[in-house]
Amino acid sequence: RVNGDRLWDTLMEMAKIGPGIAGGNNRQTLTDEDGEGRRLFQRWCEASGLTMGVDTMGNMFFTRPGTDPDALPVYVGSHLDTQPTGGKFDGVLGVLAGLEVIRSMNDLGIRTKSPVVVTNWTNEEGARFAPAMLASGVFAGIHDEAWAKERTDAKGKKFGEELKRIGWEGTEPVGSRKMKAFLEYHIEQGPILEAEGKDIGVVTHGQGLWWLQVTLTGKEAHTGSTPMPMRKNASLAMGRILELVNTIAMDNQPSAVGGVGHIEVSPGSRNVLPGKVVFTVDFRSPNQATLDAMKARFEAEAPKIVEPMGVGIAIEPVGHFDPVTFSPELTATIRNAAERLGYSHRDIISGAGHDACWMNKVAPTAMIFCPCVDGLSHNEAEDISKEWAAAGADVLLHAVVETAGV
Amino acid sequence: RVNGDRLWDTLMEMAKIGPGIAGGNNRQTLTDEDGEGRRLFQRWCEASGLTMGVDTMGNMFFTRPGTDPDALPVYVGSHLDTQPTGGKFDGVLGVLAGLEVIRSMNDLGIRTKSPVVVTNWTNEEGARFAPAMLASGVFAGIHDEAWAKERTDAKGKKFGEELKRIGWEGTEPVGSRKMKAFLEYHIEQGPILEAEGKDIGVVTHGQGLWWLQVTLTGKEAHTGSTPMPMRKNASLAMGRILELVNTIAMDNQPSAVGGVGHIEVSPGSRNVLPGKVVFTVDFRSPNQATLDAMKARFEAEAPKIVEPMGVGIAIEPVGHFDPVTFSPELTATIRNAAERLGYSHRDIISGAGHDACWMNKVAPTAMIFCPCVDGLSHNEAEDISKEWAAAGADVLLHAVVETAGV
Ligand SMILES: NC(=O)NCCC(=O)O
Ligand SMILES: NC(=O)NCCC(=O)O
Repeated sequence: RVNGDRLWDTLMEMAKIGPGIAGGNNRQTLTDEDGEGRRLFQRWCEASGLTMGVDTMGNMFFTRPGTDPDALPVYVGSHLDTQPTGGKFDGVLGVLAGLEVIRSMNDLGIRTKSPVVVTNWTNEEGARFAPAMLASGVFAGIHDEAWAKERTDAKGKKFGEELKRIGWEGTEPVGSRKMKAFLEYHIEQGPILEAEGKDIGVVTHGQGLWWLQVTLTGKEAHTGSTPMPMRKNASLAMGRILELVNTIAMDNQPSAVGGVGHIEVSPGSRNVLPGKVVFTVDFRSPNQATLDAMKARFEAEAPKIVEPMGVGIAIEPVGHFDPVTFSPELTATIRNAAERLGYSHRDIISGAGHDACWMNKVAPTAMIFCPCVDGLSHNEAEDISKEWAAAGADVLLHAVVETAGV
Repeated sequence: RVNGDRLWDTLMEMAKIGPGIAGGNNRQTLTDEDGEGRRLFQRWCEASGLTMGVDTMGNMFFTRPGTDPDALPVYVGSHLDTQPTGGKFDGVLGVLAGLEVIRSMNDLGIRTKSPVVVTNWTNEEGARFAPAMLASGVFAGIHDEAWAKERTDAKGKKFGEELKRIGWEGTEPVGSRKMKAFLEYHIEQGPILEAEGKDIGVVTHGQGLWWLQVTLTGKEAHTGSTPMPMRKNASLAMGRILELVNTIAMDNQPSAVGGVGHIEVSPGSRNVLPGKVVFTVDFRSPNQATLDAMKARFEAEAPKIVEPMGVGIAIEPVGHFDPVTFSPELTATIRNAAERLGYSHRDIISGAGHDACWMNKVAPTAMIFCPCVDGLSHNEAEDISKEWAAAGADVLLHAVVETAGV
């Protein structure tokens, strides 16, 4: 078993970097705080005898050598970046539990055949630069690296420039590493495990996603002196689209969700009908046909709502992944490990996207979930217990040792 | 008659300060650009022999002495501040036409009994600091000066501090001046005069307004892993409120408008259901009962929409003025001047609020409108012709001379 106290202390230490305003974290990707978090992680890994590699997307790899020179490495990890008002565990748990697995193997004198590599993927959250899971997507050959580096944040800053600025653009070509397996440990971010009192979620599938960025073009005009029939009101048009998004998701219950978190209204003045509204629709389903049907219905119906209002619409996909089926062998390894350790468990579908969803394209991949309080995530109040954290890390340790061989 | 070419050149010269991105202006109140515009206006006024007074709210007064030592002054003017994406004429026309009236009286050797004072009121637009017409409101005793100086912009900067920073906090006590009359010349900002081919609008009334700032409190949560029934979705709640605003306005046609221009969604991340949405509803009507009924209906119905969604709501009035009836004597003076000059005219209700609406509380007040292209205002494309501008300035000149006496 891992050292649960040490894992918890390590999590709390990392949470001091980029503190939020309500007990969580604001350590968004490629900010100074991200740079500082990376340096702390580097110090810890090197103190445990690991060797660092950094690729040109800023992905960090810390290797513990194996005993078999021919064996492919087993990778573990997740991401250290957070939402602007994020929790202390989303992503961070998977990275630091990977480090705890190394520390525990060092303590216990376990040598594995395969090298074991702990990974921090750049920009998993997609909060600052869309899409989410950007750098793992480049690693897996889904996105073009040059395209990824041109992604801009809300202030127009480019991913590539910000990566250089914080000093974490490495030299290793992206995607050049071959993996025996990739294992990601994460908080559930949903309510099921806690509600059912399960210690461990064995993640068999992941939902697919469409992010559709909508630009509505109305006509800037005075809110007081512009008669109602003359308006091309982009904010009212947006209101109607928000209702459509909800209707589409509700019509596909229980295996679909839909919502809008990102909205920009310009010029944003109290007495100016907005000329432009930009927002991003988030549709998800574990079912491929449902996912694509939601997108198709949205693209068909949204213009019919806004165009009669004189409002123009452009819909641009800015993020997408298909539903994922993880490696049955590796999920069995995780299930067995939970069983052996005496932890209650159930199979579960991930509601969120993860770097593991992209790794699944290039290597046998699986995920472990632990419960989180109230199913809450992407909220500074996100919370887990020390025991929950340690249970999943125990399962990760067993799965790593079994997959890497001794 | 005034010198229409000179008026136009003066307007175009002022428009160079704080240029917009699409041919208009961004010279928001108490910015460096506002300071620069004020200095240019001061130079012009002093070159025409006027004496400056500035009050502690930054309102600027330029006086041309009268011949009768006992006569109260006649005031003209409007505002030099603009929307973030504003036009070149909204407000500016009224200030610079006031200057043109002085210049023309100088050219023509006209001496009036009453002094004539040209005024620039601070923060008419209310774009940066709500409410609109803030400093004229303090002048008229509607708002408390200390309260006004505590108003903050979106970045948390205070009106009082910004006024000091740009160097335009004067020493004269606000509201200490007594007026014989106040005359404001402005573009219509609506479509009626242009559609009917009228040169002049004789403004008999102004609509009243309620600005209701709404704060919706949902629960920040993951857009992917939070099941639909567990959501407290503040963006969806806002969408439904936008529809309610429109319904209330449409139910009161044709003498009501309602819309929303200012919306802030936080944290504003694509994969976070917003925990907080703040926006401002703008309701207007020329009819007092309608105006108040719209507000009452909104306050009654909005909570019924969002509370069943688990979303909290707070509604705070952040701007208000009652419908206005301008001085019948002064509107007759304006109507007669238009008639005498051979300009077509009609009586009209102002859709927008104006500093004149507050001056009407403390002095006989009236307004002159000229047409504007497509009724467009609060848009960088706002436009008028040189001839339209000059016609209203001619009427202003006649009204000033008649009211001030010769
Ligand atoms: N796990 C997680 O929150 N990932 C961010 C990408 C997503 O929105 O699913
Ligand atoms: N005239 C004008 O646009 N004033 C701004 C205040 C308002 O919104 O009516």
